[in-house]
Amino acid sequence: MSEKIIINDVGPRDGLQNQAKVLTPAQRLQIIESLLAAGAKHIEVGAFVSPKAVPAMAGTDQVVAGLPKGDYEFSALIPNLRGYELAKAAGVNTVGLVVASSETMNLKNIKMTTAQAMAVCSDVLALSKTEGIRSQVYLATAWECPFEGVIDTQQVVDLVGEILAAGASEVVLADTIGAASPAGVKHLLQAIESVHGTQAISCHFHDTRGMGVANVYAAVEQGIRKFDASIGGLGGCPFAPGATGNVATEDVAVMLEQMGFDTGLNFRGLLAAIDLVSELTGNCDGGHSSRWIRRQVEMDRM
Amino acid sequence: MSEKIIINDVGPRDGLQNQAKVLTPAQRLQIIESLLAAGAKHIEVGAFVSPKAVPAMAGTDQVVAGLPKGDYEFSALIPNLRGYELAKAAGVNTVGLVVASSETMNLKNIKMTTAQAMAVCSDVLALSKTEGIRSQVYLATAWECPFEGVIDTQQVVDLVGEILAAGASEVVLADTIGAASPAGVKHLLQAIESVHGTQAISCHFHDTRGMGVANVYAAVEQGIRKFDASIGGLGGCPFAPGATGNVATEDVAVMLEQMGFDTGLNFRGLLAAIDLVSELTGNCDGGHSSRWIRRQVEMDRM
Repeated sequence: MSEKIIINDVGPRDGLQNQAKVLTPAQRLQIIESLLAAGAKHIEVGAFVSPKAVPAMAGTDQVVAGLPKGDYEFSALIPNLRGYELAKAAGVNTVGLVVASSETMNLKNIKMTTAQAMAVCSDVLALSKTEGIRSQVYLATAWECPFEGVIDTQQVVDLVGEILAAGASEVVLADTIGAASPAGVKHLLQAIESVHGTQAISCHFHDTRGMGVANVYAAVEQGIRKFDASIGGLGGCPFAPGATGNVATEDVAVMLEQMGFDTGLNFRGLLAAIDLVSELTGNCDGGHSSRWIRRQVEMDRM
Repeated sequence: MSEKIIINDVGPRDGLQNQAKVLTPAQRLQIIESLLAAGAKHIEVGAFVSPKAVPAMAGTDQVVAGLPKGDYEFSALIPNLRGYELAKAAGVNTVGLVVASSETMNLKNIKMTTAQAMAVCSDVLALSKTEGIRSQVYLATAWECPFEGVIDTQQVVDLVGEILAAGASEVVLADTIGAASPAGVKHLLQAIESVHGTQAISCHFHDTRGMGVANVYAAVEQGIRKFDASIGGLGGCPFAPGATGNVATEDVAVMLEQMGFDTGLNFRGLLAAIDLVSELTGNCDGGHSSRWIRRQVEMDRM
């Protein structure tokens, strides 16, 4: 049996958050259903944030209400305790929190210092641990910040330690602006491994400079077995100038499957999901491998 | 000083060979000049093949005649001794030969068995060695063949040995159909390294399944310091069903420079070359990083 690698599809949140077109909760559920049909079991389904600040995430409670029961990890992004309570009330089983490793990014993004952001995060983690809700903390700009440039490795290693000590189930190292190179990925992961191990670490890459897939490979080589990706490469970050889409789910899946890992995803289903996202958003051409996948499916090879 | 990695731009040959639009020798020289302006010193400038079989490469002697003198490696693809004589007469300093590691590919591509293809290749290599002309032998379908599937690693290791023993200056492992994964790249290069070393080995990747850049990274990790790539990702192979463009020069350059290597290329120049190729062929959108490069250049950051 092949070793498993988890692809957590963040298309319905990170992917949709930055689109010009705001989808309805029903349309967002349609996308989630297409991902489930493609075999996905880990999906970021929305965010409990101010609908004024992020209209695309309004009605996430309705999205959550429509999710099937079963062995799935459906996560929702929350900014604070208020978001946590909303997510819990809606029945979410995994919450996502964000702390940037860059002070400037925290100030610009959430108007807090890193210490203040960590304090908010710790309060939520204490509660989620007690209440048995999974937590994943995004360590944003883990490699490079659009304002501060390259982030000091030791600073990130220390923050990972703080977050794990505060009780997070998982730390997601996020290359928010798609600036990391595979050498940088290897370097940071080796540093983290030597202090904290990598059991509770996953990675989140953007494909801004075309290095997303290479970064996934570098992280796999360092033992990482869970990755964020978005169907069709949909995405971006409204708060990070220059960020483009997440690395595409299908690109990561093609590589990992060919490397002999089991992602649990089927390409026919992924193609249908790409087509649906493309139709609904009007802004998704698919990842770098999607044309090849389409040809394989058409030739009945997948 | 940073360690150097050579990017050999094969756009003017592998890139143009498969285009619907046939460019004139003068237009092909324009592209080569744009690459030189971007800092390229290694360029595949054309092929001495039948102009009936490959109209896009007709007049390669005129292209060669227009090349500047200096410290450049300008290579031309040749199929046999006749091609070698034409290339030599034109003044080419590096010839490229092709042998597929798959018997079926050799039969379909050049109507010879692998042994026959190796015999033709050896005759040319004996001559080129005597006459002081550099030779690089492309070991096509080194990982996977569209007809035979995955190629046995030992078979490739043995062929590399035969080619080196026959006097080739360099063996180019070519993933002709863009099917290799970084795990496969690592596996084959480790096997070759243990028998022949990797000093005389370079790699040629296509981006069909979106793994081109990741494959370059995997090869760099195994010590490879020379790569083929084509400006804007232009390219394909008329004899290999399903092959799409080479990995893009700019994508490889972005990654390698960010990893701290010196490619000798400048991004402003690469962008101008992409625009020229795009204008002349009408069929080049650039690689995965070109949009980001354009933004950097526009903001005067590159």
